[in-house]
Amino acid sequence: MRSERADGLSAFFEPASVAIFGSLKADKFAMGNALGAIKNMLKFGFKGKIYPISQSGGEAMGFKAYTSVDEVSEPIDLAMLLIPPQAVHEVLNQCAVKGIRSVIIGTENFAEAGEDGAKLQKQVVEIVRRSGIRALGPNTLGVLNPSFGLITTPYLLDFYSVLKGGIGYGSQSGLVSFGGHPLKDKGYPISKLCDFGNKCDVNEVDLLEYFSDDPETKVISMHLEDIKDGPTFMEVARKVVSRKPVLVYKPGRSQAGAKAAASHTGSLAGNDRIYESAFRQAGVIRVNSMREFWEVPKVFSSQPLPKGNRFAIVSATGGGGVICIDAAVEAGLAPATFTATTLQKLARLSPRLARNPVDMGPVLAVIADPFPAIEEMVLAVMSDINVDCATLVLPGISNTVDIFNHLKPHLVDIAKPITVFLYGTELSGMEETLRQLEAMGIPAYLDPEIAVKSLGVSVTYSKIKMRAEKS
Amino acid sequence: MRSERADGLSAFFEPASVAIFGSLKADKFAMGNALGAIKNMLKFGFKGKIYPISQSGGEAMGFKAYTSVDEVSEPIDLAMLLIPPQAVHEVLNQCAVKGIRSVIIGTENFAEAGEDGAKLQKQVVEIVRRSGIRALGPNTLGVLNPSFGLITTPYLLDFYSVLKGGIGYGSQSGLVSFGGHPLKDKGYPISKLCDFGNKCDVNEVDLLEYFSDDPETKVISMHLEDIKDGPTFMEVARKVVSRKPVLVYKPGRSQAGAKAAASHTGSLAGNDRIYESAFRQAGVIRVNSMREFWEVPKVFSSQPLPKGNRFAIVSATGGGGVICIDAAVEAGLAPATFTATTLQKLARLSPRLARNPVDMGPVLAVIADPFPAIEEMVLAVMSDINVDCATLVLPGISNTVDIFNHLKPHLVDIAKPITVFLYGTELSGMEETLRQLEAMGIPAYLDPEIAVKSLGVSVTYSKIKMRAEKS
Repeated sequence: MRSERADGLSAFFEPASVAIFGSLKADKFAMGNALGAIKNMLKFGFKGKIYPISQSGGEAMGFKAYTSVDEVSEPIDLAMLLIPPQAVHEVLNQCAVKGIRSVIIGTENFAEAGEDGAKLQKQVVEIVRRSGIRALGPNTLGVLNPSFGLITTPYLLDFYSVLKGGIGYGSQSGLVSFGGHPLKDKGYPISKLCDFGNKCDVNEVDLLEYFSDDPETKVISMHLEDIKDGPTFMEVARKVVSRKPVLVYKPGRSQAGAKAAASHTGSLAGNDRIYESAFRQAGVIRVNSMREFWEVPKVFSSQPLPKGNRFAIVSATGGGGVICIDAAVEAGLAPATFTATTLQKLARLSPRLARNPVDMGPVLAVIADPFPAIEEMVLAVMSDINVDCATLVLPGISNTVDIFNHLKPHLVDIAKPITVFLYGTELSGMEETLRQLEAMGIPAYLDPEIAVKSLGVSVTYSKIKMRAEKS
Repeated sequence: MRSERADGLSAFFEPASVAIFGSLKADKFAMGNALGAIKNMLKFGFKGKIYPISQSGGEAMGFKAYTSVDEVSEPIDLAMLLIPPQAVHEVLNQCAVKGIRSVIIGTENFAEAGEDGAKLQKQVVEIVRRSGIRALGPNTLGVLNPSFGLITTPYLLDFYSVLKGGIGYGSQSGLVSFGGHPLKDKGYPISKLCDFGNKCDVNEVDLLEYFSDDPETKVISMHLEDIKDGPTFMEVARKVVSRKPVLVYKPGRSQAGAKAAASHTGSLAGNDRIYESAFRQAGVIRVNSMREFWEVPKVFSSQPLPKGNRFAIVSATGGGGVICIDAAVEAGLAPATFTATTLQKLARLSPRLARNPVDMGPVLAVIADPFPAIEEMVLAVMSDINVDCATLVLPGISNTVDIFNHLKPHLVDIAKPITVFLYGTELSGMEETLRQLEAMGIPAYLDPEIAVKSLGVSVTYSKIKMRAEKS
């Protein structure tokens, strides 16, 4: 009955109405509790309709609660199931009858929990296939769409908004999605986020296709423990990378890791060397740590692609320049040779500045108002026709935000990608500066190596895109 | 006149009296300003005597200021020079006459500033050699010794104490020492910290020797842009590693990086491949990022060395287990196979727990009070004779601190190294949990890969130490 199948994921991310199935009794944020999910949705500002569905009926957070979904007369776009595993089949059937085409199965204890769970999951897959429902999960916290105020996790969060931006994140683990990361405090510019869970139906290929067409998503970053259908993933990815970069953080490189991944989401992780080569052929860029998974894509959310790999550094400290230029060479960047014009502009401030990296430290120490000088040096370097991209090394303090308030319009005109490495002696101030820069569309980092590598990945992607466009 | 030379660095780190040379006029934290350094010393609780030396004379922060050091009748252990470069020679000579044997030359604009500066530095070296003075710098922020309340940087800091611990840090850049890192907020357990600057006299070899004998220092972590005398460094390091681990973060791997390093501190960085092989032969462990430079040594500050590389994970999330076990294999660790006893203990809580990684997630979700269960599982795993070391994956919340309050005495008895990867949705809470764990002597990390790699480095060092002891 493939024809009845709603293939897109739009209803998962942009539903006008959501039915949330689960207990309304305990006011406890936990899997199985619909109240937590409803609270999160309200705090995130979900504008659509919410229908609590619970055997207890009654009322929840000002919403009438229904004992069964067939009591709801209006159409429902998305269902979130936070119910015991044994009840999932019946509720899926009810959803099918009601005409709900998109269902998130939050419920745990399916394939990840051993043989009995795997049998239950198999039955879920049968219903899903028969009914044409698209199902995300089971064993998932669901989705986040800041533009819609949509968030489906039932767990307590310490944040009720995130920065809207261009990164579409997909993850196979709650840890690498809602459950384990301070998404707001880190200032990641997020378009959408999806926790796959056990991928009984909706998987990384569906998400790739959805993100590829999603105008809000400029870069796709995926954490994958396994890939359900390697050849299809590579085929789809190959098409997507002509439009948007695809980054993959795939642990389970080792045999041991693969075995652990198999236990965690009930699937087989496969041979890593095969993946490595397939990723390369498809133009998928692999990142190597959880931090890189979150932070490398930031450069694509706000910055243009570089025209080449000639890299400049403008640093408020000499040590920062040395660290960054070394990281740059490792990331495939080449130190830019400034034009005579740029060298003259820099030498006017101090002869010692006239080289790459530009070590501003000694100059900043002796001039009365260093901030206009920093802006002058940054613009001299960024305007240089021999420079394709740059990392700026600046203190993580409010003055740096002011500098970018002045620089931003010029940098937009110059249209070359930059990243900023922030240093400092007070962590909360550095983090606040980072968030403010991210909110301005300036990718900021607290690790010099990742600030630079992000530009290296940007250069790598430029080449992938060109290759994809030619073929 | 080598015989007159005071060879040790004790006076740099443990002076009973410090003369601080520089302007007392502007109340501005900047190089050249003695007032900033005096303020920092007082706030850090320096118990020794402070003698401001300034042409203006008068008084500073309640201390009588001397116009010349020869006016001071008491002996002086250490001088900190924050004076113009042209004045350094004269003041060095005065220090020599006064009998000061240890001088930090904070002053900039020496070899790092071009040919003229290099000439000035050469003259400094001549005075130093002739007089027997030991000189740190120029172009340095100096030293930090939390046990002494000693801190010599004149710049404004956002912290006035740091966690005392076992890590001796040395760095060739202000950025990778006082100037660029929130030492307090990160909770690094510090024994001493030294910014080398231009290394006109005191260099990495002297610091290695000092740290090797320093009872407070359990591990040495050095950021080096260059090595002044490679063969001597390797010879000394080879001896030191039989007593304490030596980690080196050495950027400038690339030709371009080496060139930038040469500009920054006025020296040549050398061929990286030669270093790489020399480090390996000497038993020096290289780390690859600024974050690793700061964070990897934490495991040596408080944890015993592992007896082998058999690695366990106890994780509150399944995804965390997969990420950590993969990182473990890359770090040279091997997943431990639990004994039947351990498997029985775990299976009593849930059959799904009886494997490595121990994914506690599903169990924690269904039991009323998860914390005693976590403690039980951790102790079952850590007591296993097949387990040499472990990473625990836990939420960065105050309950986790409570767990370790209970576990700590048992872990001390078990005497196997652990690291903790903290996750969460609120950054400041995660950071506060990290600091509290560090203060308890539990190495905590916000990056799973570094939490695991630290144990891998610990295993690597165990082998180096055994090899060094045999030879």
